[in-house]
Amino acid sequence: MAALRHSGLRPLSLARKRLSAPSPARQSLPQTLSRPFSASTARMVSSYYSGEPEGPVVKTDIPGPKSKEHLAALDKVFDTRSTNMLADYTKSFGNYIVDPDGNTLLDVYAQIASIPIGYNNPALVDAAKSPDMVNAIINRPALGNFPSHDWASVLETGILKVAPKGCDQVFTAMAGSDANETAYKAAFMWRRQKERGGPSVEFTEEEMSSAMNNQSPGASQLSIMSFKTGFHGRLFGSLSTTRSKPIHKLDIPAFDWPQATFPQLKYPLEEHAEENAKAEAAALEEVEHLIKTWHIPPAAVIVEPIQSEGGDNHASPAFFRGLREVTKKHGVLLIVDEVQTGVGATGKFWAHDHWDLPTPPDMVTFSKKAQTAGYYFSNPELRPNKPYRQFNTWMGDPARALLFRAIIDEVQRLNLVENTAKVGDYLFGKLEELSKKYPGEFQNLRGKGQGTFIAFDNPKRDQFLAKAKKFGVNIGGSGANAVRLRPMLIFEQGHADILLGALEKIVTSW
Amino acid sequence: MAALRHSGLRPLSLARKRLSAPSPARQSLPQTLSRPFSASTARMVSSYYSGEPEGPVVKTDIPGPKSKEHLAALDKVFDTRSTNMLADYTKSFGNYIVDPDGNTLLDVYAQIASIPIGYNNPALVDAAKSPDMVNAIINRPALGNFPSHDWASVLETGILKVAPKGCDQVFTAMAGSDANETAYKAAFMWRRQKERGGPSVEFTEEEMSSAMNNQSPGASQLSIMSFKTGFHGRLFGSLSTTRSKPIHKLDIPAFDWPQATFPQLKYPLEEHAEENAKAEAAALEEVEHLIKTWHIPPAAVIVEPIQSEGGDNHASPAFFRGLREVTKKHGVLLIVDEVQTGVGATGKFWAHDHWDLPTPPDMVTFSKKAQTAGYYFSNPELRPNKPYRQFNTWMGDPARALLFRAIIDEVQRLNLVENTAKVGDYLFGKLEELSKKYPGEFQNLRGKGQGTFIAFDNPKRDQFLAKAKKFGVNIGGSGANAVRLRPMLIFEQGHADILLGALEKIVTSW
Repeated sequence: MAALRHSGLRPLSLARKRLSAPSPARQSLPQTLSRPFSASTARMVSSYYSGEPEGPVVKTDIPGPKSKEHLAALDKVFDTRSTNMLADYTKSFGNYIVDPDGNTLLDVYAQIASIPIGYNNPALVDAAKSPDMVNAIINRPALGNFPSHDWASVLETGILKVAPKGCDQVFTAMAGSDANETAYKAAFMWRRQKERGGPSVEFTEEEMSSAMNNQSPGASQLSIMSFKTGFHGRLFGSLSTTRSKPIHKLDIPAFDWPQATFPQLKYPLEEHAEENAKAEAAALEEVEHLIKTWHIPPAAVIVEPIQSEGGDNHASPAFFRGLREVTKKHGVLLIVDEVQTGVGATGKFWAHDHWDLPTPPDMVTFSKKAQTAGYYFSNPELRPNKPYRQFNTWMGDPARALLFRAIIDEVQRLNLVENTAKVGDYLFGKLEELSKKYPGEFQNLRGKGQGTFIAFDNPKRDQFLAKAKKFGVNIGGSGANAVRLRPMLIFEQGHADILLGALEKIVTSW
Repeated sequence: MAALRHSGLRPLSLARKRLSAPSPARQSLPQTLSRPFSASTARMVSSYYSGEPEGPVVKTDIPGPKSKEHLAALDKVFDTRSTNMLADYTKSFGNYIVDPDGNTLLDVYAQIASIPIGYNNPALVDAAKSPDMVNAIINRPALGNFPSHDWASVLETGILKVAPKGCDQVFTAMAGSDANETAYKAAFMWRRQKERGGPSVEFTEEEMSSAMNNQSPGASQLSIMSFKTGFHGRLFGSLSTTRSKPIHKLDIPAFDWPQATFPQLKYPLEEHAEENAKAEAAALEEVEHLIKTWHIPPAAVIVEPIQSEGGDNHASPAFFRGLREVTKKHGVLLIVDEVQTGVGATGKFWAHDHWDLPTPPDMVTFSKKAQTAGYYFSNPELRPNKPYRQFNTWMGDPARALLFRAIIDEVQRLNLVENTAKVGDYLFGKLEELSKKYPGEFQNLRGKGQGTFIAFDNPKRDQFLAKAKKFGVNIGGSGANAVRLRPMLIFEQGHADILLGALEKIVTSW
């Protein structure tokens, strides 16, 4: 382990300061558990920050007695049926989530892929205590009407410092759903402006009156194309483009928008190269066909670099270059939804950096690990022709923008994107070994060269995830059968070894 | 002024602590301004907190030279065309907003009605610096999956402590738009569940497959009814119910949902009682007619207690009782949108507390002054029959929930709702005098008995608002002609006198 702890990563001496984090590994296990997990074979503390637990400790069933008490109280006022586990965030640290019963789990789900650099990260504690943050918390502006004098600087030193190549502007939002929906609105306004003959052409009386009645021509008859098994959010416009699971969509009215088939690649990729290339070519043909024929023409196509909620479905860079080409050819915008893939986990800051696109996406949406949300763009025509067309009261949250800035600083200071690429390669290699040893348990292993954004299928997926907790690891699923790994950017090789140990224990203990 | 400063309000000695707020009133006025505003005739500092400026100071045109510099920088990366004025929030205090040129304006717009208890409120500074807040900022949970052990307590001591009568549960959200949209989703699921035969009836294969194609029966053919000139947000579902202005809706696809006429009352109310009652009865008839006949049946009706963006349109408690009756009669839910009216400004904590409803609304949405968002409800059938139907990654923001809790504590400690009712009565009385003195300038004065939630029409409204800044007051508009007053809850009689002085100067200086 000693070798792993320092293999290419910054030594502990770089830690900014020591935090008095809990040491639950020392606590004794209760007698009542039939198979309590002992972390004795695998220990790893962060080489970035001191104070991380040495490894997982499982003391009770999860939920344990204290969690059950809290859950019963919570259920009276808040729907708890989707609770995965209760957490005590005051005790969680680094890669470890701690529950009220003292269970300490290595967290490779990370709040549905949204904790970027660890619980109670000392650098973020500093940012949260800063006068700027206090100011942003208590004096929340209506950004569109009353921006603060330093808003340009907050954007430039934060959100825009990591803007995707070719993007130099941003519309800030609150979460992935409204980031996507405001991007859709920008696409509709852009398309209608083009059809109308440019930004200076005034709206007609008929457009204005029909818009008020939700009728065309004022309310446009245009659509957003998305892909089957894609996920883009759960409000009405975004849900109309989400095609992951019926439970997300049932009973909710939806727009009659088109969906193209996302290529369903076969694994291992090297054994199915020809077949996969054909699947991607067919998908691109379908996209072009739908653009040309759908009765409500698409103003934009939205796509995830890796379909995440929908089951960790990948496509090749060539596919995405083809998608850029076909959208360009037909004057349809390309929106890349980086809500889950963005901010480093794929080993590049933005997952679409892997594609080597000839021209950048028209808009790139972000949220989750950014802890704030919005869409990047560059084309000035994507600014609506008049003010108040793309507008709402808060238009984002400066407090969360400041947090993202602090996250970016840490990611850059510690080279976390590059390190995630390396750790991901290590983890993927070890998983390949496991998949050869237990081929039925680790099917369709995917995410090679995509940092730690790795997944595999397991035929008893839900039981697999439940058992993972007993062995000290918090893992999430996606799609019907996928186990998706979403470690934070401070996940190191030693953490990978703990994870790998737990994965092997899960599949050898059915 | 001395009498006003202490009339029924807590004396200065109750202030929690002294803040070193700026004293821009002492600064000299530049020679270049033709008519600089001097606040010498009206001075008012807060009796709640020390450190508030004594009155407005206008030193430059707005935007002044420094603001213009900041705006030019901001425009490169962020759309600034809807900017009203730039602010320096580090210098703003209490009821006063300060800009980078040192202009200090009495702010009765308050970030589009969303600052509840003043800029840099000392109690909120304490809340923002608390360990709880630091924790909530840096360890943001996916609340639906991993709630914190104390989330029930945060809700019960905060958001739920002020829950509307008859509501004991909450679904937390991020802003008014998603609060309304998640309420709509709850309504659709509730209605389809009833049609299906109850919560235990499983979805059919056809429902599941058609939902994935955005088609019925899986995607329901149901609607949300709203009122003409109503505003409920700007995402796709909420925008379909928003009927305030074409600029909000143009080019954006919309659902074919019904809109009823909101009664257009004539003022003064006492002179038009019969006519207004007829208008309200006709509106209720139209609601009932649309419920019975609209080709996409409404699952819910959404209504603002006072249509705010749409022009400050009021209706009587009898109208709203009638609306409750007609929706109950037809099994349609009633959603009260308290995004702008909620949290005290009408002189009750919730504006619908004025109505004396026989049965509570089915859902009440909130945001803005709450600084967080969501919908309240009580009926257990409004919890969807399965988990993950009403779900998203963050489901609100605990940091903002903690801030709302601190706001509630201050509102209750200082009796700010009752005081707002009193100050509102005072302000309304004085405005009535002004409207008699200048009848063409203060038309359709409205909001009597509704706290400081007061508006009037002015034929040159946009110029009126621009001139207000020259006389040291920041005021917003609504609808086509309305000047809407949205002071904070710490607005006192002395502030009202400053506002009244400025209003008279505006209309006597055309």
